[in-house]
Amino acid sequence: MALMDRLESRKAKINRELEKALAVGDNETLRGAMKHYPLAGGKRLRPLLSYLVAEAISGNGEPTVPYGVGLEIIHNFTLVHDDIMDRSDLRRGIVSVHKKYNTPTAIIAGDALFALAFENICNLQIDDALLRIIVNDTALAVREVAEGQQMDMEFEKKHDVAVRDYLNMIDKKTSRLYFAAARSGAIIGRGTLEQIKAMGELGYLMGIGFQIWDDVLDLEGEEEKTGKPFGGDIREGKRTLMVVYGMNELRGEDRKTFSSILGNSKASRKSIQETVSLLHKCGAVSYAKNFALEYVREAKEKTTVLKSSEAKELLMELIDYTVRRDN
Amino acid sequence: MALMDRLESRKAKINRELEKALAVGDNETLRGAMKHYPLAGGKRLRPLLSYLVAEAISGNGEPTVPYGVGLEIIHNFTLVHDDIMDRSDLRRGIVSVHKKYNTPTAIIAGDALFALAFENICNLQIDDALLRIIVNDTALAVREVAEGQQMDMEFEKKHDVAVRDYLNMIDKKTSRLYFAAARSGAIIGRGTLEQIKAMGELGYLMGIGFQIWDDVLDLEGEEEKTGKPFGGDIREGKRTLMVVYGMNELRGEDRKTFSSILGNSKASRKSIQETVSLLHKCGAVSYAKNFALEYVREAKEKTTVLKSSEAKELLMELIDYTVRRDN
Repeated sequence: MALMDRLESRKAKINRELEKALAVGDNETLRGAMKHYPLAGGKRLRPLLSYLVAEAISGNGEPTVPYGVGLEIIHNFTLVHDDIMDRSDLRRGIVSVHKKYNTPTAIIAGDALFALAFENICNLQIDDALLRIIVNDTALAVREVAEGQQMDMEFEKKHDVAVRDYLNMIDKKTSRLYFAAARSGAIIGRGTLEQIKAMGELGYLMGIGFQIWDDVLDLEGEEEKTGKPFGGDIREGKRTLMVVYGMNELRGEDRKTFSSILGNSKASRKSIQETVSLLHKCGAVSYAKNFALEYVREAKEKTTVLKSSEAKELLMELIDYTVRRDN
Repeated sequence: MALMDRLESRKAKINRELEKALAVGDNETLRGAMKHYPLAGGKRLRPLLSYLVAEAISGNGEPTVPYGVGLEIIHNFTLVHDDIMDRSDLRRGIVSVHKKYNTPTAIIAGDALFALAFENICNLQIDDALLRIIVNDTALAVREVAEGQQMDMEFEKKHDVAVRDYLNMIDKKTSRLYFAAARSGAIIGRGTLEQIKAMGELGYLMGIGFQIWDDVLDLEGEEEKTGKPFGGDIREGKRTLMVVYGMNELRGEDRKTFSSILGNSKASRKSIQETVSLLHKCGAVSYAKNFALEYVREAKEKTTVLKSSEAKELLMELIDYTVRRDN
């Protein structure tokens, strides 16, 4: 049975609580803007990660649900604000929040989602002392996500982004929420210190693999599946791992062509295809794929601190999924 | 001695911790954008309210400082996002964050400040069970602030805003943070249930008075003192209490003139002065001032649950200050 089918009952619990969590507030427009992304689908990878980690440790993942819901809401709030900043009109195959409503409402909806996330996290049925740790860790993670977004934007104007810089950026922009998901799952499941530490590392590694794969999908995915326009990252001039590699390897005419298209918001589909060919030609795409696979392999190794169980197996498959998915 | 001088040592403690709190993060641009408003001055009314409430109850307001710092950071995050939405270029006499940096960085800086606020609140040296309550209350308050901002925007396009609607809007947009400040101050000071309840009400009433006075200052204040352009609310078409009253009372030519200027972002200084005269003429300004004074009077009555002390006196003066200030 496919992984997502095997995870269905867990995902259904998360979705049910997420839907309930979003049925709040007195302003109809704001409520609509807040629900727009979270209820338009989504893989729920972060809540599932938290859930499976706690289940693998304690036999029960359900106590993580309020946290998973909080994380999913945080993830969605960052998407709402991201799309304003990137002027993206499409997300998950639907029109973006600021396009459907307007920019002020999208800014407010993102802020309200952020607040709502912490309300949900406060619903965790765990020791108050542990809640303090989780609230603090999560707030820090969100601040680091913001820092990662700032770096991401600044890189668009930089020519000499090193692999190290890129990794530092996606560690913040993406991995911190995976780190928080897995680590808090271990805390909620009352894991040992060793398990809590290992699960944090697992989340970090998985997050890096996830982000690199996301960048690959921007160039290789099918629009109907990703719900995003093909080559959006190239048009925005994003310094993905492939671009960083390509800028180092490409020479002469190839380099000139590549540079002229990168960051051109009006680049044609044909131009984007040309950059993709160049990135393939110089080995950037396979480099990035192998890079992601290596992180995923290391992430799976971290599960040695968990005893054998169905949840552990599912967790390993979930990690694998980050580099097998097509959306 | 003037109130603000008598509060100086308390304010200095708050400012010291606020400055420390803002010295975080690895990205210089983001750090600059985050500090831009909070370190450009500010009355620190919310932290001082929390501080004085706790001091009046327990004799010591210092334990509230991490909370006050969190509230002040939240207040500033809402200003950063507000100024993007309202396209305001000036705040506290300095250029706004999105003008000094750019809109994406301002969105990110607001988000990062929001996260940082919760990190600071987690530093409160109080029972973990009380921290859970305070985090939850504060997250809810921020969500309601967002809802109030949405209402405020929607009102700009409405002709028939009732006083009741206006009060509901500023209750959310402004009073919730005052409510949280005073109520949490009472919780941190280990007040009785009666005191906690009364202080929450005090904060609510003070917040309403504060917001109405803020609207009055937009029309009557001196730009060098308010740090904001004269009549900005009129140009944006904000439905302040004076405008709501004026729209009900003005007739004939006066009404036509008033309506034609309200919401005209390019209105001249002379036009703005004309609307101010009309609002005076129909009694809207004195109506609003009396309204604010009445709320402030009721707020002070709530202090009957506090025993006599210097802190209680200062608290009452702080409440009075909201309708005596010139900035």
